[in-house]
Amino acid sequence: MLVQKYKDMLSAKSVIRQLSEFATARGAEIGYENVFDYSLGNPSVPVPQEFTDQMIHMLNTMNTNELHGYSPSLGITSVREAVAASLEKRFGLPYRKEHIFMASGAAGALAHAFRLVTEPGDEIITFAPFFPEYHPYVDLTGAVLKVVPPDTEAFQIHFDAFEEMISEKTMAVMINTPNNPSGVVYSAVTLQRLADVLRSKSEEFGHTIYLISDEPYREIVFGGVEAPCVSFFYENTIMCYSFSKSLSLPGERIGYVAVHPACKDAEVMVNMCGQISRGIGHNCPPSIIQLAVAGVLELTSDLSVYETNMNLLYNELVDLGFTCVKPDGTFYIFPKALEEDAKAFCQKALKYDLILVPGDTFGAPGFFRMAYCIDTEKVERSLPALRRFVKETYGR
Amino acid sequence: MLVQKYKDMLSAKSVIRQLSEFATARGAEIGYENVFDYSLGNPSVPVPQEFTDQMIHMLNTMNTNELHGYSPSLGITSVREAVAASLEKRFGLPYRKEHIFMASGAAGALAHAFRLVTEPGDEIITFAPFFPEYHPYVDLTGAVLKVVPPDTEAFQIHFDAFEEMISEKTMAVMINTPNNPSGVVYSAVTLQRLADVLRSKSEEFGHTIYLISDEPYREIVFGGVEAPCVSFFYENTIMCYSFSKSLSLPGERIGYVAVHPACKDAEVMVNMCGQISRGIGHNCPPSIIQLAVAGVLELTSDLSVYETNMNLLYNELVDLGFTCVKPDGTFYIFPKALEEDAKAFCQKALKYDLILVPGDTFGAPGFFRMAYCIDTEKVERSLPALRRFVKETYGR
Repeated sequence: MLVQKYKDMLSAKSVIRQLSEFATARGAEIGYENVFDYSLGNPSVPVPQEFTDQMIHMLNTMNTNELHGYSPSLGITSVREAVAASLEKRFGLPYRKEHIFMASGAAGALAHAFRLVTEPGDEIITFAPFFPEYHPYVDLTGAVLKVVPPDTEAFQIHFDAFEEMISEKTMAVMINTPNNPSGVVYSAVTLQRLADVLRSKSEEFGHTIYLISDEPYREIVFGGVEAPCVSFFYENTIMCYSFSKSLSLPGERIGYVAVHPACKDAEVMVNMCGQISRGIGHNCPPSIIQLAVAGVLELTSDLSVYETNMNLLYNELVDLGFTCVKPDGTFYIFPKALEEDAKAFCQKALKYDLILVPGDTFGAPGFFRMAYCIDTEKVERSLPALRRFVKETYGR
Repeated sequence: MLVQKYKDMLSAKSVIRQLSEFATARGAEIGYENVFDYSLGNPSVPVPQEFTDQMIHMLNTMNTNELHGYSPSLGITSVREAVAASLEKRFGLPYRKEHIFMASGAAGALAHAFRLVTEPGDEIITFAPFFPEYHPYVDLTGAVLKVVPPDTEAFQIHFDAFEEMISEKTMAVMINTPNNPSGVVYSAVTLQRLADVLRSKSEEFGHTIYLISDEPYREIVFGGVEAPCVSFFYENTIMCYSFSKSLSLPGERIGYVAVHPACKDAEVMVNMCGQISRGIGHNCPPSIIQLAVAGVLELTSDLSVYETNMNLLYNELVDLGFTCVKPDGTFYIFPKALEEDAKAFCQKALKYDLILVPGDTFGAPGFFRMAYCIDTEKVERSLPALRRFVKETYGR
């Protein structure tokens, strides 16, 4: 018999996917260039040429069995060393290869992190607005995802609600900064206060509460500032990283888990990841991609277009009277809709070929997300449509 | 708290890994070329040049966001179509893309297959000798792996023991032909009888018993014969394939699930795989590798060296008085040890720098495995060591 829970999931279609399918269908009618598709968070800037060159160089020169051979289950040793050295150089924490586990993207990294620290029935807390895939990611392990309601003023952390929700069952807290969908970076003040709560609650409950830090947008920060390093604030941090956004490589499934060097049992945790892999069919990210990213760890794609797009949109939205927290990074912006029901708002926008995603999906009803990882030229062309939509629908 | 079951697994070191580590350490002493390391099943023949050319061509010519972009969760559509067409051409069954789910190697494919048809507590039956990783693969899903003792005469299926073991709890049966470690191909007679049992037991128990067919060695068959197509015999077959061995690409994590076109709910099963992925951090094999293998589906590495090596070893072993089933394929041979305790036998062989793996690991005590995916020249050099070992230890 087929397993019912997976069968049941087929009928629950994701809102983002439905909108993206609408955009594709509408594109077939009027030309996709005329659909202002802000639905999908797919990197739109080219992969760095150095990555491509490195791939071609290895394909031309390396023994194929070495290049395409099995990776050790924790990742290729030289790659783990390179990642550790790069993290140490950047954040000043003494990472060594023993703290690094190579994983197939952030989804692969998170799948290991959850299984490291939770058994079925245990709870993981995260904060709205949040990436909706966290639900299947966590729920299907048997653990329970609890969501703290949003701080709608600044999209930092609603600490009162958090402290009410945290309990003996809480084994981990998961954050995502820079944040999808708000674009906000958690401030040092927020991270310090979070660490203080985690330390005091760990002591109160007599077990470590781990911090799972999902950081795929770490390199996409605006205004020339670096996002505060989460691991810097709390030693029991499991960093989950992906090169998907920084190098525009989402399809190549490459990322890592980096356990804080001062975390109790850090090396054991990385070895445990190798065991977890055996149960979920992981067996490491592709060897050639591991080797190629190790050569470009200090590089990113040219990410400046995302800041250009953000400024265009932010200024226009504020001009039109939207309430909107200015993004510190990512390629998302998360304004308040012009009516209470963001689903209705987004539905009405479709008439103007504007594809916006209601915030309900992200645990923040009343808001909507725009993913501006598209050409700047298209963002510019979308502004008149946005103006017409607001004027004709809401009389502004 | 860290999850104890994964922590506990760290102390149970795999026999194969221990032997392989011994080989590496011994290699550092006397030169690895002088260690006759038959422990590891790593492909030793080059990747086809056409694969490398295809990779370089794509890297040189394709838009990087298309080349490295997200794959749909079931796999890239054109790749699924190409795999289906290739399977239809070869096996005459009407595969369509709706039956194909791209997976990260056989481990990834099996991880989906198990979750499709078993809930915790359900049973999957397999047949000794068997690949020992099946245990963590299955056990960590919560299902139970039951192992039918071997037919030590021919390494086909011990049907009496199988029919005693099959029960209402049996949701799937898993086979691996050509077989690791025996090298044997299940005959048409075996597969027909297996299908008959599965049909009659499915009816008796009132639920479908699925056949999970793990086929990474399908292309490595000797004497110019094709292995019988498992799916041909039983419609409720979930084929799990990997390109690791046929194209010498084990590190690139590329394979697929192919659900038999006549299997009830075949398309639903493939869509369910996409949901299962969300819970195990799968998110598809690397895009560039999917696209590259789609261009070389009709090719394999030059696999003839494995047959050459097999003949050298088989003839020598028989000459030395070993009881040994002649392999039909793979790069393994599985002779009977010269004393009852194969672990002691393999331990004694180490003195001659012969790295052999005791059959206990594979559920067949008294036998040992040699993985002859090494240079023919090294196989030849190992024969005098094998002769000396047998003569000096067992007086033959």
